[in-house]
Amino acid sequence: MDEHVSDNASIIVFSGDLDKILAAFVIATGAASMGMEVTMYFTFWGLSAIRKPDGKSKGKGLMDRLFGMMIPKGPAKLKLSQMHMCGMGTSMMRSVMRKKNVPSIEDMIKDASDLGIRIVACSMAMDVMGLKREELLDEVDEVTGVASFIAEAEKAHITLFV
Amino acid sequence: MDEHVSDNASIIVFSGDLDKILAAFVIATGAASMGMEVTMYFTFWGLSAIRKPDGKSKGKGLMDRLFGMMIPKGPAKLKLSQMHMCGMGTSMMRSVMRKKNVPSIEDMIKDASDLGIRIVACSMAMDVMGLKREELLDEVDEVTGVASFIAEAEKAHITLFV
Amino acid sequence: MDEHVSDNASIIVFSGDLDKILAAFVIATGAASMGMEVTMYFTFWGLSAIRKPDGKSKGKGLMDRLFGMMIPKGPAKLKLSQMHMCGMGTSMMRSVMRKKNVPSIEDMIKDASDLGIRIVACSMAMDVMGLKREELLDEVDEVTGVASFIAEAEKAHITLFV
Repeated sequence: MDEHVSDNASIIVFSGDLDKILAAFVIATGAASMGMEVTMYFTFWGLSAIRKPDGKSKGKGLMDRLFGMMIPKGPAKLKLSQMHMCGMGTSMMRSVMRKKNVPSIEDMIKDASDLGIRIVACSMAMDVMGLKREELLDEVDEVTGVASFIAEAEKAHITLFV
Repeated sequence: MDEHVSDNASIIVFSGDLDKILAAFVIATGAASMGMEVTMYFTFWGLSAIRKPDGKSKGKGLMDRLFGMMIPKGPAKLKLSQMHMCGMGTSMMRSVMRKKNVPSIEDMIKDASDLGIRIVACSMAMDVMGLKREELLDEVDEVTGVASFIAEAEKAHITLFV
Repeated sequence: MDEHVSDNASIIVFSGDLDKILAAFVIATGAASMGMEVTMYFTFWGLSAIRKPDGKSKGKGLMDRLFGMMIPKGPAKLKLSQMHMCGMGTSMMRSVMRKKNVPSIEDMIKDASDLGIRIVACSMAMDVMGLKREELLDEVDEVTGVASFIAEAEKAHITLFV
């Protein structure tokens, strides 16, 4: 038996762009629906997708609070990587997605969790950004360092950096 | 025999930036030249690379027409991800590429097709963007959903998200 | 024995953004620390991360000199992909990284080299950008074409495009 190859997918979600995160979830839920074990590892700007919309930031230093303000608070605040056009392009995309029955990121996170996709947050990025565990969505399964992620990616068959 | 590992490469082309799409084609044609089976899966902004320059958009709703206008019409309209500088950087890059005998994206698509690279368009993204099959280049082999792509990526050895 | 699967990682560093390059080095050094053989292949804007800060550009044509000016000179000149905010966001990130004991890119390149990570520059991109070997950091192990990279990626288990 080959221990290294399996039907696993490991997706690093680095980007905080609505469209890229959407793509990551489409791939992840697609793979999970087909029976693959999927881990999504959220780091850097990607953390904004798994932030609680109403997350408080008590007891933080100035830098942490500044970063906290810069990073979008949750999936509803994400913007397109292109054609954001002061919000017009982004809301157009959301509206088209709704009309064409593409689930929203909010729904996709729930779907992902229901499908058994492991949603993991990168501890180093959380530290740099000054984010605390309680500021993340309940769907987040774990906060780990990069080593745990690599240990999993080593066993995965599809590895993507989004 | 291990059915999952083979000399295949699956490249998701999500970006619509000239330089990233160029990189995707360089990797894809390089891999195909070395005997690998390569699939390029164009989604979201990446669809702009495989759009016909003169594609018409008859019988579309307003939203679809708006999106149609926002997405560059074909490879000759793509911009750099950085240093676009109102077109100066982008045309400088094109001119340098020509001078240094790097093929244009237009030529690379033809080369890719000739080398047997499968050029696939993502049906969901086409739906969201309001693009129809006849608006895509003749080199496009297929329009499929994400499931078909994942089924292929599962068998691929190199998987990239560009 | 399966010759194609091994504990190797191949990372294409295409982006010239500080945060993405940082992520690439975190993953690369993490993987190398765990005993994997890692190759980082710098191409396009990613070349700016492995440029000497004081690299001269003698005997170059106009286009090459223009490109040379556009590409950041070494890791200390890199910017964030988001929230650069005329330098404020970027220097904030650098300061936070220092405070939270995340090594700088400069240190990460040295660490990567010490850990045995192969640092490779893409010859085609160097040609397009008009960069010469002597303008690159001493940590760069090799300048090769895309074919050598693919030959290695074929043997790698984790392949990422950053």
